[in-house]
Amino acid sequence: MEKKITIYDLAKELNVSPGTISRSLNNHPSISKKTKDKVVLKANELGYKVNKFAVNLRTQKSNTIGVIIPKLDSYFMSTLLAGVEKVANEAGYNLIISQSLESMEKEKLNAKTLYNSGIDAILVSLAFNTENYDHFTPFIKSKIPLIFMDRVHVLPNCPTIVIDNVQAGYDATDHLIQQGCKNIIVITGNLKRNVYADRVLGYKKALKANKYKFSTDCIFETTMEPKNTSDVLGYIKNMDEPVDGLFILADSFAAHCIKELKKENYNIPEDLKIVGFNNDPISVLVTPTLSTIEYPGYNMGLLAGESIINQIKGNINLQETNAISLRHKLIVRESSRN
Amino acid sequence: MEKKITIYDLAKELNVSPGTISRSLNNHPSISKKTKDKVVLKANELGYKVNKFAVNLRTQKSNTIGVIIPKLDSYFMSTLLAGVEKVANEAGYNLIISQSLESMEKEKLNAKTLYNSGIDAILVSLAFNTENYDHFTPFIKSKIPLIFMDRVHVLPNCPTIVIDNVQAGYDATDHLIQQGCKNIIVITGNLKRNVYADRVLGYKKALKANKYKFSTDCIFETTMEPKNTSDVLGYIKNMDEPVDGLFILADSFAAHCIKELKKENYNIPEDLKIVGFNNDPISVLVTPTLSTIEYPGYNMGLLAGESIINQIKGNINLQETNAISLRHKLIVRESSRN
Repeated sequence: MEKKITIYDLAKELNVSPGTISRSLNNHPSISKKTKDKVVLKANELGYKVNKFAVNLRTQKSNTIGVIIPKLDSYFMSTLLAGVEKVANEAGYNLIISQSLESMEKEKLNAKTLYNSGIDAILVSLAFNTENYDHFTPFIKSKIPLIFMDRVHVLPNCPTIVIDNVQAGYDATDHLIQQGCKNIIVITGNLKRNVYADRVLGYKKALKANKYKFSTDCIFETTMEPKNTSDVLGYIKNMDEPVDGLFILADSFAAHCIKELKKENYNIPEDLKIVGFNNDPISVLVTPTLSTIEYPGYNMGLLAGESIINQIKGNINLQETNAISLRHKLIVRESSRN
Repeated sequence: MEKKITIYDLAKELNVSPGTISRSLNNHPSISKKTKDKVVLKANELGYKVNKFAVNLRTQKSNTIGVIIPKLDSYFMSTLLAGVEKVANEAGYNLIISQSLESMEKEKLNAKTLYNSGIDAILVSLAFNTENYDHFTPFIKSKIPLIFMDRVHVLPNCPTIVIDNVQAGYDATDHLIQQGCKNIIVITGNLKRNVYADRVLGYKKALKANKYKFSTDCIFETTMEPKNTSDVLGYIKNMDEPVDGLFILADSFAAHCIKELKKENYNIPEDLKIVGFNNDPISVLVTPTLSTIEYPGYNMGLLAGESIINQIKGNINLQETNAISLRHKLIVRESSRN
């Protein structure tokens, strides 16, 4: 590696004191603009780099926010991250991003690594199978701000950012009922996660409000990977009463199910009405277009970024806040229209 | 903030010397497993944290890799990142991810921030409009490994990871010609970027090899945002000779174009054959399913991660390597079949 350029090198080159260099680079008011410009120009020319490590050691701050999400390559998560990154970047924070790959064990390791990296705050969306939350205790003990996004868990001093998944589940189910569906099945991800459990709760509430009977047979749990569409089809076909409504808790999986259902000559929406979740771009590109719940991932990311940065800076104290809820919206398209 | 736990606190709690604590935490062979376990247990219990900042200052290494990509919320980029993150995470590196949002100015700022953060290496995929590369000079001067991925530029000591975009463009065009297309239009992103320019070059080569005439009218440049489909349709309709083949350089935009074309009663593939690019999940979900070029984003991410980490560790010297090229593959589906 080349010799590192120091403020002493810059001082020598410009024939001024190291103190002048240091004050210029820190934009100190005692230095003229002309001198500052000269110093900055020379610093850039020679490739001078602030010794961030020394600054970090002095301040014990890294200007870094850690993020743990289940998977980078899901549309919802990538839009959420895009929102977080935009806010963090503009506020001068770096974002360290890690994936749990839907595994609690990996999530634990990521939490440990991030904790030891000296991040100033952390944003978390939980893995499918997380059921123990001790790996977040070090953050709470050290008063490092922690906010859960989307897939959340209630822990002391950790606010959550969510949509009202119960209401969203209710809205989707009630819509299918109003369209005349008599036997509605919910296709859901792991019910350990609030997002799925709450939507299913909303489904049950809508049935009750409309005096429909609920049966546990009407809930089908799956990892919602494309390869699992055949399980869904098998399940539907073997129901005693014909299924005429599907509420599928992710658009991407709904799109794959529609493809398989069409192959099996189901007419959508005539025989079977479908509502998805998320309003992924895919929902307007499939045939028929997919009714869904708009879930503002990008806006959630912006809000999560703003909230955590304000908390780091002490502008707001969200640790007393329990949950921040964003608006959702039912979008009716061809897949559920009469 | 609570008082920070130090090795002295741990030593007091366990009634051993600070040296024993330090050696235990560093897994020193002179300490018994029993003692190590006891120390680690107590350290976790009290929330002891390695002072990473002091370690960084001593080693002048951050174990961090910076990444600049155009947009987090594109399918290709999110799969690429997923690959990079997997490798980095397993090797114990943190990933600081930033978006240029397709702006050279933002890319410059990101490069500066990452440089000052003391990252050990950087991976870059260029913004749409980047045409000056001086913001990468500090990395090159400081011998900080830099690898370009996908959207690349040739700079000294900076290898590139790509697919053979010229050949891929050739393959797609030649396929359309073999299917009988006489008037093939390319719908492309900004031609400043190698990925698009090279694919268009491949298109031209395929025309030449098949003794077709090339006309600049056959290239339509766009930002490939969904709102621009109407421009594409207008352009096609106003061509003197009827267009019977479209080579659209991104699947997501191709899917939006198909939707608009169907509304205007174009029969695909009978009237108009279409090939996209990337093999996004959308390509099997649209009707008709979309022929495309498989572009292994996840594998590119794995390779980029492995390459940069090996370079940091000095295991390989890629700075003398010019380009690493991955395999692509033409996938024929309904949109271009006779």
